[in-house]
Amino acid sequence: MPLTPLNPAFAATFAPPVMEARRWLEGVAFPPERPLINVSQAAPVDPPPEALRRAIAEAALDTPAAHLYGPVLGLPELRAELARQWSAAYGGEISAPQVAITQGCNQAFCAVMATLAGAGDEVILPTPWYFNHKMWLDMAGVRAVPLATGAGLLPDPEAAAALITPATRAIVLVSPNNPGGAEYPAELVRAFLELARARGLALILDETYRDFDSRTGAPHDLFADPDWPDTFIHLYSFSKAYRLTGHRVGAIVAAEARLAEVEKFLDTVAICPSQLGQIAALWGVRHLGQWVAGERAEILARRAAMEAGLARLEGWKMLGCGAYFAYVEHPDPRPAPEFARALVREAGVLLLPGTMFMPETDPRGARQLRIAFANVDAAGIDALMVRLAAAGPKP
Amino acid sequence: MPLTPLNPAFAATFAPPVMEARRWLEGVAFPPERPLINVSQAAPVDPPPEALRRAIAEAALDTPAAHLYGPVLGLPELRAELARQWSAAYGGEISAPQVAITQGCNQAFCAVMATLAGAGDEVILPTPWYFNHKMWLDMAGVRAVPLATGAGLLPDPEAAAALITPATRAIVLVSPNNPGGAEYPAELVRAFLELARARGLALILDETYRDFDSRTGAPHDLFADPDWPDTFIHLYSFSKAYRLTGHRVGAIVAAEARLAEVEKFLDTVAICPSQLGQIAALWGVRHLGQWVAGERAEILARRAAMEAGLARLEGWKMLGCGAYFAYVEHPDPRPAPEFARALVREAGVLLLPGTMFMPETDPRGARQLRIAFANVDAAGIDALMVRLAAAGPKP
Repeated sequence: MPLTPLNPAFAATFAPPVMEARRWLEGVAFPPERPLINVSQAAPVDPPPEALRRAIAEAALDTPAAHLYGPVLGLPELRAELARQWSAAYGGEISAPQVAITQGCNQAFCAVMATLAGAGDEVILPTPWYFNHKMWLDMAGVRAVPLATGAGLLPDPEAAAALITPATRAIVLVSPNNPGGAEYPAELVRAFLELARARGLALILDETYRDFDSRTGAPHDLFADPDWPDTFIHLYSFSKAYRLTGHRVGAIVAAEARLAEVEKFLDTVAICPSQLGQIAALWGVRHLGQWVAGERAEILARRAAMEAGLARLEGWKMLGCGAYFAYVEHPDPRPAPEFARALVREAGVLLLPGTMFMPETDPRGARQLRIAFANVDAAGIDALMVRLAAAGPKP
Repeated sequence: MPLTPLNPAFAATFAPPVMEARRWLEGVAFPPERPLINVSQAAPVDPPPEALRRAIAEAALDTPAAHLYGPVLGLPELRAELARQWSAAYGGEISAPQVAITQGCNQAFCAVMATLAGAGDEVILPTPWYFNHKMWLDMAGVRAVPLATGAGLLPDPEAAAALITPATRAIVLVSPNNPGGAEYPAELVRAFLELARARGLALILDETYRDFDSRTGAPHDLFADPDWPDTFIHLYSFSKAYRLTGHRVGAIVAAEARLAEVEKFLDTVAICPSQLGQIAALWGVRHLGQWVAGERAEILARRAAMEAGLARLEGWKMLGCGAYFAYVEHPDPRPAPEFARALVREAGVLLLPGTMFMPETDPRGARQLRIAFANVDAAGIDALMVRLAAAGPKP
């Protein structure tokens, strides 16, 4: 029996890819000598450091406010701390009222996007795109306009300009990129800001993976532009750096007037972010700078292992690599969704096919795979390479 | 400078009422002999019992999964426990796959509604309505069709039937009602189910305040209908009974096929509910049944004090009273928004005007006020009555 009533915009979008991939594991046995290598999700698999866990536990026991509603836009101390640290890191001026805390960075995106675009509007997304961005646009009746990326998976501002119509409301960038790993050069981000500003659009930059950028210093200079609030919207996640995925804490940096609109959405969808999650995030940004630096060094070492390993694999091609992700072209004759499912049984590897990050009309997705390698240490990456080599097409 | 781009559906809705009311307190001093009586928000002001706080703290320290992503639709144990307890309480059959956990009951509503109605659709809401329901519909471009309630603030199924058009997708009920306090009779809820089923609509029943219903036994028999999943959608909140507002945990009970669509929304907006919040909710539903019964008895005593007190106030009229709320008609010549603001300075009382729960076109809102009395003990209710009596119009 068909489900009724059903908003047709929901029928038009796809099921959550990570949950779908998880279902591929059902009924498959992974022998102890060849355990599953799960490179499907971009998430830490270890809990946060003990000192942070202790800070959460203490707040749960001793801070009554940790259990009660807080302000819709987040804890004032966390907003102020992020404003202070970001102002220093990006060499710009960000005030606490320009920061909002959300239940994770996905929610930050949805909240901002809802204030920008409704049914019938258009938003430009470079491809491969982050699937939850595409899903939100689908469900809201907003047309996601794909902007195919070129060498290094970098989007071209001129190509983007050619896609702008009177219905366009925003351009969305993710750097370091999910799924592509690409670190967008500062000049490229700046060119997109100028394009967006000239055409009266918002520029959203999702910097969920900023703590694992291989470059030192500010990754872009947009906050140094005193007029940044007229166009620029920055998104951040506390989940990766502090291993807080289960607490759901993200952030938006935007014009105060934008956040007054965001507040309507968050009041209705969230009421407030989890208080313990915010307490954890605040403790993390205040105390774990050194620890996060170590995490970054480890991720960069894994990235190097990933690049070296894949370079030795015959027929495979690295399209982009950075932060948590390698995005690759595979040599198997089977289309990526079929090959990815086969890899579960044949190689004990779970990863996502490029088709999950591409419009159906783009044939490149069928040749591509995303490898979220952040949870796999150097030995694990070696093992992954051995398994991929064995799974490839036989001569 | 106007904010651009701006989704016009956001400009068309209002700012979060509770946050707006909070701003009325700015610059007002409340002397120690007459402290603020805050009856504006429906939320516990005390933390959960110590044993529950300890359970949260222990999970934070010792359960690694408490910090990591979980399934989009929630912890399997919590879904199963709610299914088991609700099946018993409502005398029906509910299975774990028919339960989803959300980041609070507001999110439960948004997630369900998004799967039902998009821009241009219509949804019927009895008035006075819960403002966050109205805000979501506004922001999604869905038309909220007001259904004026009659005696006892009860909606009439025949009047609802007359409002149904080809664009109608759902009818939303809240029982016990926010803001009106009314406990909808089982036969009334059943009549709405039959109307919704006959017309191919969804019936959403928000039972956030079910734990404080004055009636014993099941408040309705909808789950006893084996076909309930074809029409009925139940919403619940763990926030009030277990004092977990700051953790954001709610639930949806609906057809499994509906939850497959809800999963798309929640994956994109939430990824998963807060793990510690879910652990707390599970501990609560397993261990705090007796404690919640005591909480309910206390709320019912406060309700009785509220009813007795208001009956003695000249010119005031009780329109509805139950769970956390009294909804009243006031005798002051000033319109409710003006009178409510004046009460902050003149009486040290913060409450919300009826206009926040009504369409602008309905003149009744200007004569009405919501009093969320759950946080005020018997002595506080006496004090509230003295202050309201003094603030009323002078002969």
